[in-house]
Amino acid sequence: VDPAAVRAAQERHGRLTKPPGSLGALEDLSVRLAGLAGVCPPPLPEPAAVAVFAGDHGVHAQRVSPWPQEVTAQMVANFLAGGAVVNAMARQVGADVVVVDVGVAAEVPAGPGLVSRNVRRGTADLTAGPAMARADALRAMEIGIEVANDLIAAGNRCLLTGDMGIANTTASAALIAAFTHADPVAVTGRGTGIDDDMHRRKIEVVRRALALHLPDPADPIGVLAAVGGLEHAALAGFMLGAAARKVPVILDGVIACSAALAAKALAPDSVAAMVAGHRSVEPGAAIALDALGLRPLVDLDLRLGEGSGATLALPLVQSAVRVLREVATFDSAGVTDQ
Amino acid sequence: VDPAAVRAAQERHGRLTKPPGSLGALEDLSVRLAGLAGVCPPPLPEPAAVAVFAGDHGVHAQRVSPWPQEVTAQMVANFLAGGAVVNAMARQVGADVVVVDVGVAAEVPAGPGLVSRNVRRGTADLTAGPAMARADALRAMEIGIEVANDLIAAGNRCLLTGDMGIANTTASAALIAAFTHADPVAVTGRGTGIDDDMHRRKIEVVRRALALHLPDPADPIGVLAAVGGLEHAALAGFMLGAAARKVPVILDGVIACSAALAAKALAPDSVAAMVAGHRSVEPGAAIALDALGLRPLVDLDLRLGEGSGATLALPLVQSAVRVLREVATFDSAGVTDQ
Repeated sequence: VDPAAVRAAQERHGRLTKPPGSLGALEDLSVRLAGLAGVCPPPLPEPAAVAVFAGDHGVHAQRVSPWPQEVTAQMVANFLAGGAVVNAMARQVGADVVVVDVGVAAEVPAGPGLVSRNVRRGTADLTAGPAMARADALRAMEIGIEVANDLIAAGNRCLLTGDMGIANTTASAALIAAFTHADPVAVTGRGTGIDDDMHRRKIEVVRRALALHLPDPADPIGVLAAVGGLEHAALAGFMLGAAARKVPVILDGVIACSAALAAKALAPDSVAAMVAGHRSVEPGAAIALDALGLRPLVDLDLRLGEGSGATLALPLVQSAVRVLREVATFDSAGVTDQ
Repeated sequence: VDPAAVRAAQERHGRLTKPPGSLGALEDLSVRLAGLAGVCPPPLPEPAAVAVFAGDHGVHAQRVSPWPQEVTAQMVANFLAGGAVVNAMARQVGADVVVVDVGVAAEVPAGPGLVSRNVRRGTADLTAGPAMARADALRAMEIGIEVANDLIAAGNRCLLTGDMGIANTTASAALIAAFTHADPVAVTGRGTGIDDDMHRRKIEVVRRALALHLPDPADPIGVLAAVGGLEHAALAGFMLGAAARKVPVILDGVIACSAALAAKALAPDSVAAMVAGHRSVEPGAAIALDALGLRPLVDLDLRLGEGSGATLALPLVQSAVRVLREVATFDSAGVTDQ
């Protein structure tokens, strides 16, 4: 973060034709993005692209989701056909959608918009052993970095996280508990909407996984390998890739927030590139956002994933920067300051 | 509101490729807009236009704002030049901005984008007598209806409220107290950012105005004339005009919310067309939104006005409708339902 750009942005906000501080959290955000870019005003965060990382989860065998595992691959096809919620929202805000198969259990046919980088056909059951090998987690993370680099090389100036993976909120809860030391009951939510019995079972699954692996937050790759998912590892890499290029990355919900904890543990400065798109109803999301020190932009009881919350937040991020770039000053507009 | 369209929208949400209810408040919003339009899915709320109604306030003489009154006219010029915050945000989201001089004290030179409909050169001091005559309030309201009709005739399918008027949060506080019976101390905020002394004086000004006029909420035109502003009356008409044409109208902050209470008192069904863009930090805004039964979409500590909060909310409203229009169903996409 460039302190001179931060100071320049703060000072500029005081000269724009509006009462000082009247744009609240959006002023803070635009100042952060100036600090990230190292220049005031920062570049407009567009064009933008959502990367939907898809993976499957062996813990699905523990009956933590009412959805069959094949829905992951079916939804990948839906994303590629443009029929999912994130596609509709991305069309509204002018963002591209790319889908990355980083660990889907079923074979996903190649097609336009698909990045085929399957590391393994889903993780193993984290209640029985590690979800994956360290090498798998590292490979998935490298893929995330590569996707970020490719999207930036293609001209994108804002990246958005998306995810698809039946049962992936269970892995997210375990990651958040591991990184924040929160109790499983505090971080384990109802995902896509499960009943009380399944919710109790899911909490116990997270508790057993932590007891089995004793994940060490000082070893983030080890945590990802033990209780994470392939899309979580890829998302952590995606965030690190964006941060290394000083491009803002808008986090979606609980999957992204849990991956962000891994990215932060690996490279604390990477948080400077992260923008919290929204506050998911998943309880772990709020705990992770607190640990990241990020304030969410949208708070509308969403619990879909896919990148939907990040996509909704994109125009807010762009507007925050646009104000700093385009609004007249008191001097230039001939408006009397108070 | 059309109950068949509401039911059709609720039923459709259950068939779209997402967990039921997973879009939270956006699902409720899209269902409301189907009910408003009388058809499912409802039309996409675009193109959209922000109407910024500008007026001055005689109560400015009571020193309730640190800004000189001429700033109202200076900011009108800034809007017309495209240099204000609402202009930058409207460019981001593809909305037009029109500026309506409904009661600015200074002469505003005609120019592109200006609708010149000055009813009177600002209100009178509401602590000394009525802010305006009933005929003035009615005329301003008619202008608001006319502006809504003209924007809809020009093809707009979503209207957004904007406002400009130094000291207009004082009139808003008085309106909200009059319509909700809330105490002046509960509804009177710091506007653009005033110190403790000025805030105390502002509360007393609102209290004296209510004691002087004893405004009767059963006579909304009388309330507007006694303690309102010309832009408040015009905004109430603008909302009624949108509602009559079944076009959604996104409310900005406390000025719009106070005007919405007048619109609701005149025509309770008009609330069906209103979408709460954001929750302003002005305490009266939350009280008014509660009275209207509306949940705000954006909550980022904004206190600017101009239509900025409504403009930020526009893509959220558009995305909510777009989901209902464009997302594939489980059947059509070949995705297994749970």
